[in-house]
Amino acid sequence: MRMKYFEDIEVGEVWDLGQRAVEAAEIIEFASQYDPQPFHTDAAAAEASFFGGLIASGWHTCAMFMRMACDAQNDEGGGERMASLGSPGFDDLKWLLPVRPGDILSVRTRILSATPSRSKQDRGTMRIQIWVSNQKNEIVLEMTSMGRYLRRPTG
Amino acid sequence: MRMKYFEDIEVGEVWDLGQRAVEAAEIIEFASQYDPQPFHTDAAAAEASFFGGLIASGWHTCAMFMRMACDAQNDEGGGERMASLGSPGFDDLKWLLPVRPGDILSVRTRILSATPSRSKQDRGTMRIQIWVSNQKNEIVLEMTSMGRYLRRPTG
Repeated sequence: MRMKYFEDIEVGEVWDLGQRAVEAAEIIEFASQYDPQPFHTDAAAAEASFFGGLIASGWHTCAMFMRMACDAQNDEGGGERMASLGSPGFDDLKWLLPVRPGDILSVRTRILSATPSRSKQDRGTMRIQIWVSNQKNEIVLEMTSMGRYLRRPTG
Repeated sequence: MRMKYFEDIEVGEVWDLGQRAVEAAEIIEFASQYDPQPFHTDAAAAEASFFGGLIASGWHTCAMFMRMACDAQNDEGGGERMASLGSPGFDDLKWLLPVRPGDILSVRTRILSATPSRSKQDRGTMRIQIWVSNQKNEIVLEMTSMGRYLRRPTG
């Protein structure tokens, strides 16, 4: 599999990272372990709540985004693996709309900036805008990610 | 269980939300489902990686924080349940240090501001600073959360 380095990505590039169906059982399973609030874990209680039905934990939506981002780099999927050194974090993470059972999520990303490290010559940081949308093309989650990537080895 | 409303919380309040042990099996289980990068899922590959050993997915650390926040409001734990309407999002989420098997995480929160809604008289928004630390008192995750809460019913 080809490895993509810092230099291989251009500011302004837009990537679509596939789709993922959201199921009630997975919403409940995730939330039972990590976010056991009734509107995430109990369909009847969720019906009676402010949200009018079961919704995914916001952290579950983030986790589903991450899996889609990983799968898009997957070997069998024909992807190219980024030479990633992990992420220092995110800015402006916004859960704009609830994610519900039956939703089909899709992810789009856009490279906002690419800055070589001053102190470490082997790496650089990219700012990446991320949108997660549902099947109605409504954005459900929006955030700006920082990602650290290796520069292409020289020589 | 007593319900805590928007009015029951004061700017500057600091809460400690308990502790949670991080286990290798849980790191691998979460990452296998949501963040299958080798340094999260494969101890041997993680040893050989930039990180020098298995580390938790950053999203897993967020999920563990969320569970600690929920448990701190738990009935049996003697907590008081916040009248929460969910969160519109986070600012400045920073994964500062890796989380590793054997770490003991603890959470501290501080209320930064509390603003009644102008358009909806039944609710208000709080900005909350959140720190997740390990057993060496090193901050591993820092973020600023927005939370929407019901105001105390009148009459």
